Amino acid sequence: MGITQQDTRQVVAVDVGGTEIKAALVAVGSDHARQLQRRRRRTPRATEADQDDATAGAATVRLIVDAVVELIEELRAAAEGPVVGAGIVVPGIVDEETGVAVYSANLGWRDAPLRELIAARSDIPIAFGHDIRASGLAEIRFGAARGCQDAVVLPIGTGIAAALLVDGRLLRGAGFAGEIGHVDIGHRERCTCGAVGCVEAVASSSAVARRYAERVGRPVKGAAEVATAVQAGDPVAIEVWQDAMDGLTRAILVLVTLLAPEVVVLGGGLAQSGDLLIAPVRERLAALVSFHRVPLLRPAELGDEAGCLGAALLAVGTLEDR
Amino acid sequence: MGITQQDTRQVVAVDVGGTEIKAALVAVGSDHARQLQRRRRRTPRATEADQDDATAGAATVRLIVDAVVELIEELRAAAEGPVVGAGIVVPGIVDEETGVAVYSANLGWRDAPLRELIAARSDIPIAFGHDIRASGLAEIRFGAARGCQDAVVLPIGTGIAAALLVDGRLLRGAGFAGEIGHVDIGHRERCTCGAVGCVEAVASSSAVARRYAERVGRPVKGAAEVATAVQAGDPVAIEVWQDAMDGLTRAILVLVTLLAPEVVVLGGGLAQSGDLLIAPVRERLAALVSFHRVPLLRPAELGDEAGCLGAALLAVGTLEDR
Repeated sequence: MGITQQDTRQVVAVDVGGTEIKAALVAVGSDHARQLQRRRRRTPRATEADQDDATAGAATVRLIVDAVVELIEELRAAAEGPVVGAGIVVPGIVDEETGVAVYSANLGWRDAPLRELIAARSDIPIAFGHDIRASGLAEIRFGAARGCQDAVVLPIGTGIAAALLVDGRLLRGAGFAGEIGHVDIGHRERCTCGAVGCVEAVASSSAVARRYAERVGRPVKGAAEVATAVQAGDPVAIEVWQDAMDGLTRAILVLVTLLAPEVVVLGGGLAQSGDLLIAPVRERLAALVSFHRVPLLRPAELGDEAGCLGAALLAVGTLEDR
Repeated sequence: MGITQQDTRQVVAVDVGGTEIKAALVAVGSDHARQLQRRRRRTPRATEADQDDATAGAATVRLIVDAVVELIEELRAAAEGPVVGAGIVVPGIVDEETGVAVYSANLGWRDAPLRELIAARSDIPIAFGHDIRASGLAEIRFGAARGCQDAVVLPIGTGIAAALLVDGRLLRGAGFAGEIGHVDIGHRERCTCGAVGCVEAVASSSAVARRYAERVGRPVKGAAEVATAVQAGDPVAIEVWQDAMDGLTRAILVLVTLLAPEVVVLGGGLAQSGDLLIAPVRERLAALVSFHRVPLLRPAELGDEAGCLGAALLAVGTLEDR
């Protein structure tokens, strides 16, 4: 799609992840978005041995705010023409309403007023949101769920959480909505959250890698290595993979029963396995549905750009749910 | 609250159930609703032996439309002052947008354009909706969930389905949202829907009665009889009751994980057991939550009037989700 001066605005988008911060200068129009410049850097963390968790969490917040402010200024300096705002998205429990990062197990913070902390050091408007919901929004606006009123966007990475679109609106639940990864599907393995039976404990990309590594007794690089072994006919890999597909299907069936999406978009690391993922889930789901509205299953289209594109959408305030 | 002429409107409300049609003349104001007149009649059904299911379903639609139109006229005739509209709610899968009763296993219809069929025979505006969502709306506006942005209203009767309020809006999902009764919680019993493990198959009021009757080998009047036996210390009743409480708690945990309600309102037949329901579910839920937003658990306040009050809200069009 052509991008013309009239209908686009330039914003900075920042996607703070557990290991990496992705940032981009993005041109956003009504029906398109394009990354004009990209920056990546390692997510800084406070790790002094003498700090307790709360102190380390607060120190990490300061380091990340510094990094985000620097990235915003760097990309503004690199821009041709005005940058009208910035959007920042972070993982965990995020209250978009108040701009507070309520909790992240990974980054160690609790109740960090990130929007305020960043806005105090910037002279452009700062939008703030949740990484999964923002990525979902990008898939809904520009990707595999475009045009839908009811959709689930389900990135399967280290963890599993979902962006839930119902009746044309993304659900927030004060920041707690969408934690499908922690629904009990009846297996016996313990999850990092402390509970037993969570979807995430057998079906996340890291669970697939971990469970295969445990069985073959050697380190495994990631779920992609397991996928390759599945294609080569390795029976251990096939068993681990089937457990993951069973778990994902049960998770999707819960979403279908409660929320009735027209489309379920599968993204994240595991979705790069393409037909090794979509086809088995589709087949299992078809065997389980009865009175339900049966959703289409589609691979995500925006890959790991979705977070920045979603943050850019937050920045221009063209979100349907705002 | 006082009802004055200025801020109230009179409407007819009709709640079509599987065994009974409840109708009422309702005075609705901005913060109150009151039933001025009530009518009840048995739900008519076409049951000729020579009809196939589709024919019987279509004939039932005609009989029910006749009954609803008669009730509207009867209550209008009984009203002092003008009746400005009517609201009709029905069970099953209901598409509020199109006014179509998509499916009811109990009443046997498929894709019945009920709003249109009733409106064609009435000279006042006809609103049309889903019984569970309308009841939930009444609890949200006037009952146990008033003032909430995020709430689940869960009537536990012959079946179990939920009205889901998220971010101040009732979820529809084209009529399919809220079927929590058919989420698999891992037991081995078969549900009327054909699947195994559904919440409804152990935790609905009819499941409680049926499972107790099977174990004691004699007919049981209903869940209330089982509740009485529980209070008398009957070990069989206690076991059946505990299965139901376990099932309900797991269902509520799924809702809490995905949607994060502030309040879960328990209604329907089983909720009449009061503390025999709320206290055990609260205790079990407290043991299972971790990162979640923990909801308050409350009994419904509007009893079996909720359906008619919700239908009345639909009729006056003061619904937040319209």
